[in-house]
Amino acid sequence: MKNTPCIGIVGGLGPYAGLDLVRKIFDGTKADCDQDHLPVMLYSFPGDIPVRPEFLLGLTKENPGEAIGNIMVRMAEAGATIIGMPCNTAHSPRILDVALDRLAATGRNVRFVHIIKAAVTHMTALCPPGSRVGLMGTVATLRTRLYQDALEQAGLVPVILDDEGCARVQDAISNREYGIKASSNPVSQKACDILRAAVRELAEKDVAAILLGCTEIPLALTESELFGVPMVDATSVLAQALIRACDPEKLRFPDAIL
Amino acid sequence: MKNTPCIGIVGGLGPYAGLDLVRKIFDGTKADCDQDHLPVMLYSFPGDIPVRPEFLLGLTKENPGEAIGNIMVRMAEAGATIIGMPCNTAHSPRILDVALDRLAATGRNVRFVHIIKAAVTHMTALCPPGSRVGLMGTVATLRTRLYQDALEQAGLVPVILDDEGCARVQDAISNREYGIKASSNPVSQKACDILRAAVRELAEKDVAAILLGCTEIPLALTESELFGVPMVDATSVLAQALIRACDPEKLRFPDAIL
Repeated sequence: MKNTPCIGIVGGLGPYAGLDLVRKIFDGTKADCDQDHLPVMLYSFPGDIPVRPEFLLGLTKENPGEAIGNIMVRMAEAGATIIGMPCNTAHSPRILDVALDRLAATGRNVRFVHIIKAAVTHMTALCPPGSRVGLMGTVATLRTRLYQDALEQAGLVPVILDDEGCARVQDAISNREYGIKASSNPVSQKACDILRAAVRELAEKDVAAILLGCTEIPLALTESELFGVPMVDATSVLAQALIRACDPEKLRFPDAIL
Repeated sequence: MKNTPCIGIVGGLGPYAGLDLVRKIFDGTKADCDQDHLPVMLYSFPGDIPVRPEFLLGLTKENPGEAIGNIMVRMAEAGATIIGMPCNTAHSPRILDVALDRLAATGRNVRFVHIIKAAVTHMTALCPPGSRVGLMGTVATLRTRLYQDALEQAGLVPVILDDEGCARVQDAISNREYGIKASSNPVSQKACDILRAAVRELAEKDVAAILLGCTEIPLALTESELFGVPMVDATSVLAQALIRACDPEKLRFPDAIL
């Protein structure tokens, strides 16, 4: 049983981003009855995982990578052979390396599908070399240059908002009153308005596409194009990559540029 | 770790009904940041679980209860202490008893929250004794009188469509072209139209409320009232009951009549 390919999702970062990824896996699977769908397990244990941005910004010493690693180990022991994590911030090496070391120590043959690598590969397929690409994410993701370095290495030119613009995006994500993490279904009008304004500002900076590099943002912005610019949702790209890793025959849109 | 309350969901019956339940748990939880949400695991292994209606109608001998029981055992071993299953048909004793026996054999202290019992309790809170209540479900759920017997024992009068009407509802659920199981996101217009027509027909039969006794139906019908009649979604009731079993303090709408 445990050698059958099975996708494990580290959820809870936040909970709705976990659901969004699972839904995108189901949506992206060729299926016309229940039995056609792929095996997926979701572990949404948000209470176990300390806040990621605060750790990366030096406001707390508790590394969330340890709890994330424990969850990965539990999923691997329960039969997951392919693991994905719908949280860009948690892919910072200071967090992810700790988690993956813990997983590797089990000796189990589990493949981790990396959202940043999948999204950057996708951007290079979508945009000609040298293109300027807009990038949105949490302040912690941007400050640690997770996406900027990877995009530059892939020959693209990342364009982000100024500090004030980035702080507004962070506020739309994590404000305890109207932020997406406080109210995901539906997302508040205020959070949507802030994010649309941020997209408009990036769209005016002559970019070929905009990468939504935080898995909370596509809960608010579901359009595939805004202000004339294609929007790339890293969660959708990860879903596609996980299906491909599990069973490429099951891809409903095998050639999709998401 | 394994004694902390943790909700386990038997998904895959179908996959989107599993997601719908998890979303309703999140929506029903008092939370303004990730860490406030309850621990939830979802095992969506549809390929492992044989078709339920065909077994109940005698068209196949393979009892899906065995695979469902194995999934429950795997979840219990992975730390689930409370289990829910968003599939009314699979609550037929011929299936469920086999699964729960397998779970009980592990000796683990796991509480199973029963969707039929939760939904019927809810109907008695909503409707005065002796009320006529509309009931929709799969042909197998209706033929095995899962809900009818429970509603009658609770002092309510179940009202269902004639055989032809029930067959149309089944078709909206499982048709391989336009059924909800073939296309859940979005649900096809044809499936929605069939289900709305069925609701209208029941609404004209002088019922106090209509119980959506198949977890696929609320994927198509999301209204809380249709044609002047309150719609009770068994998935929402189960979500509420699971939160209550895990941590009643976390209920966002503790007094909700769903």
